[in-house]
Amino acid sequence: MKIDLNCDMGESFGTYKLGNDAEMMSIITSANIACGFHAGGPKVMSSTVSLAAQSGVAVGAHPGYPDLNGFGRRNMALDAEEIETMLLYQIGALAAFTKANGVELVHVKAHGALYNRAAIDPDCAAAIAKAVARYSKSLILVGLAGSHLIRTGEQAGLRTAREGFPDRAYLPDGCLMPRSQAGAVIESPEEVAQNALRLAREGVRIEKGGSVQYLPVDTLCLHGDNSSAVSNAKLVAKVLTEAGIELQALT
Amino acid sequence: MKIDLNCDMGESFGTYKLGNDAEMMSIITSANIACGFHAGGPKVMSSTVSLAAQSGVAVGAHPGYPDLNGFGRRNMALDAEEIETMLLYQIGALAAFTKANGVELVHVKAHGALYNRAAIDPDCAAAIAKAVARYSKSLILVGLAGSHLIRTGEQAGLRTAREGFPDRAYLPDGCLMPRSQAGAVIESPEEVAQNALRLAREGVRIEKGGSVQYLPVDTLCLHGDNSSAVSNAKLVAKVLTEAGIELQALT
Amino acid sequence: MKIDLNCDMGESFGTYKLGNDAEMMSIITSANIACGFHAGGPKVMSSTVSLAAQSGVAVGAHPGYPDLNGFGRRNMALDAEEIETMLLYQIGALAAFTKANGVELVHVKAHGALYNRAAIDPDCAAAIAKAVARYSKSLILVGLAGSHLIRTGEQAGLRTAREGFPDRAYLPDGCLMPRSQAGAVIESPEEVAQNALRLAREGVRIEKGGSVQYLPVDTLCLHGDNSSAVSNAKLVAKVLTEAGIELQALT
Amino acid sequence: MKIDLNCDMGESFGTYKLGNDAEMMSIITSANIACGFHAGGPKVMSSTVSLAAQSGVAVGAHPGYPDLNGFGRRNMALDAEEIETMLLYQIGALAAFTKANGVELVHVKAHGALYNRAAIDPDCAAAIAKAVARYSKSLILVGLAGSHLIRTGEQAGLRTAREGFPDRAYLPDGCLMPRSQAGAVIESPEEVAQNALRLAREGVRIEKGGSVQYLPVDTLCLHGDNSSAVSNAKLVAKVLTEAGIELQALT
Repeated sequence: MKIDLNCDMGESFGTYKLGNDAEMMSIITSANIACGFHAGGPKVMSSTVSLAAQSGVAVGAHPGYPDLNGFGRRNMALDAEEIETMLLYQIGALAAFTKANGVELVHVKAHGALYNRAAIDPDCAAAIAKAVARYSKSLILVGLAGSHLIRTGEQAGLRTAREGFPDRAYLPDGCLMPRSQAGAVIESPEEVAQNALRLAREGVRIEKGGSVQYLPVDTLCLHGDNSSAVSNAKLVAKVLTEAGIELQALT
Repeated sequence: MKIDLNCDMGESFGTYKLGNDAEMMSIITSANIACGFHAGGPKVMSSTVSLAAQSGVAVGAHPGYPDLNGFGRRNMALDAEEIETMLLYQIGALAAFTKANGVELVHVKAHGALYNRAAIDPDCAAAIAKAVARYSKSLILVGLAGSHLIRTGEQAGLRTAREGFPDRAYLPDGCLMPRSQAGAVIESPEEVAQNALRLAREGVRIEKGGSVQYLPVDTLCLHGDNSSAVSNAKLVAKVLTEAGIELQALT
Repeated sequence: MKIDLNCDMGESFGTYKLGNDAEMMSIITSANIACGFHAGGPKVMSSTVSLAAQSGVAVGAHPGYPDLNGFGRRNMALDAEEIETMLLYQIGALAAFTKANGVELVHVKAHGALYNRAAIDPDCAAAIAKAVARYSKSLILVGLAGSHLIRTGEQAGLRTAREGFPDRAYLPDGCLMPRSQAGAVIESPEEVAQNALRLAREGVRIEKGGSVQYLPVDTLCLHGDNSSAVSNAKLVAKVLTEAGIELQALT
Repeated sequence: MKIDLNCDMGESFGTYKLGNDAEMMSIITSANIACGFHAGGPKVMSSTVSLAAQSGVAVGAHPGYPDLNGFGRRNMALDAEEIETMLLYQIGALAAFTKANGVELVHVKAHGALYNRAAIDPDCAAAIAKAVARYSKSLILVGLAGSHLIRTGEQAGLRTAREGFPDRAYLPDGCLMPRSQAGAVIESPEEVAQNALRLAREGVRIEKGGSVQYLPVDTLCLHGDNSSAVSNAKLVAKVLTEAGIELQALT
């Protein structure tokens, strides 16, 4: 039994520093690296890919909306062609650094508002899947477990990775509890680690009618941008490893 | 005997249109396509690469300074690492569209103020050559004939292409006459065509001491952004072809 | 009887030219000048305000979403505080040029997707009205006749100007026909001029239940960005003037 | 005897936080607030001006090059018209927030590479002085003591404020020691405080030929962007106050 641990990386911008990339690299197995549209930039991408390469962490592109001031967290009414081409652009830009560092580009995971939109908007999901497929059929498309994006990617013949969030509460129907609701974000490191274990073993629990189903999860999202991020991530990795679950990048 | 005809392309931006790309594609053999930093953007790059692919025109990346408002024509004091990484970024971004369109990325030519700086600034030239070499040793580096960039590229083991400007006056020492001087830009289509023929046959003429040397030229720069651009370019192509010079992309 | 003729101006960007500002200035009475977020920029704003001042045309700020690549025509999920502060920012930026040119800033009209959103979204309308009121109670807030923005502005104690569109078809309920529907944009110059006359005299016609009401209009929007814009605008001005309607800026 | 203590403020950007603005406000007498080109933005400007207003700190505009990724620290070859208009733009944008908060805009201080260029480049200095004078003759122009900008501002009839740097070493000729030289930046809080006292009392010491002159200083620059910034600034304020020097904003 195995699971991938991914984390958003390379989200600094110019003189502004964000995240604990160096420390997180020693814990995770996959890095989603910002591509300059919502965060990051050439220098940051170069050093982050280099760091991932040295750490043996799989590199993925983390494309987002062109909105540095909003950090890609505000939805933008971009049409399908704009989404498809801006995905290609950002994937290619990041791939220059994997090429220059002699490593593979393994996966693509949309960021922020684009990630959320792709989970429910068929046109957005199709545009993302098309961009990834046009770039390379060997890229792995990461999306929310149970999302429209995952189904669309599968239909497009892409390899997909279903993502779970150990630090987020889920609703009975398997959807993430909106951040606006109390209890949506789980603070306790122990609880986060137990959720990680449950997600890795069982997947996302879904009550449907009277019965219960489980949606398998291939990768767990860890956060690296707050003060306790590193210790929390270490605890997740420890609990999973001690339970006999192998931490391994997507393949 | 053969020569490449190149033209800057894909310099529209959003709702703003620039250039006569569709018409120029039927004349030139190589397109230098803007990469979104000084002009262009994902949608424009996508349609321009697609147009070049359909027209059988070789595609090159045309990276510039991150300065849309100044169209990359204003020098910026970026350090070598910033230049190297922003070249990698822009080359990769454009390469996504060549990949998606099933064509090769053939060459790289810096734009505007970066092109001019690379001709004389060793650190800038080295950063550009390093970026190109790190991306792929099979890319052709285009630079001003006789420039520092060409020498640096050769030393880095890159294939280079020496560029001449048929619509610009040259000084006796082989340098371009600065635009600030009267007569720097040649308006007469016939004169431009004759310059093109001379540059293709002899190269750039250099008087040094009492003797005369000629600097070979591999590619000629045509401009596509003014009203008479297309007819001028057609005349250049006609005069060259009638003189038995083959128009062929860089190899 | 009098009416204001307004036109969006200063929408060039760097090397990219848009619109026929110089010619339109001789026809219109109010210029809505882009503030650098969706179009324009310091140099363009400076020359456009100077041109308006010389032409005796009233100057208004034309703030939009921070989206040059989308020309402010794509909705962005900015919160009320972001909208309020970005309005203040853009109004102030434009006011620097009215101050430097010794003229008054007369009105504020939101651009593109922000204009449309303000017509129907109470939070957006409130944020815009608040920004305008905080900047100066003497500014006139321009909005779609019958829109939420106009009501909100009035409630905030602002002077408002109700806008009509002579080149757009209206639905029986007084709303603009969506651009996606055939016939939404009126091409015939004569028809546009007759609509202008009707809007100036009667206002927007609204069928409600069995009865008909008319919504007064204070200002008519002319477009300056296509080839026939100038002649169309001249015809509108001619037809209005010949009908005895005075063309006058908002007061 | 009195002196102004100024500090660069409002340099956060979107999700990125920089500086200790809240704490520094209780120490300084003047805040130079970033205007969105090199740092800051509408929301940040709004909250920073509001904070300054509440703290009784004088507000100044801190305009910079349009280069968020380089934080305005990289020189850009903008022409005089671009500099003048981008100064007007940024001053106006900030003034919207002073207006909305019911306080005065007191001074203008260029940022980073623009500040350094204005000290030695006559065209740049003239463009800045012209922008400030066009906006309002009652604004105070802050520049390096002994700089070209100060002379240009005086010739333009502007009130000027000569700035000294207590945490920087000066060369015998009164110029700042370049940061590339060892010892250019003074780390010891005690030494910084003693420099502040000397600059406030005597001004900048200049050896010229065999004789010594002193260049008066009206305002001292404190830095707020590093971990020890606040305690250092407190020490400067304490040492000055205990020496009987009144801390007072520019007038």
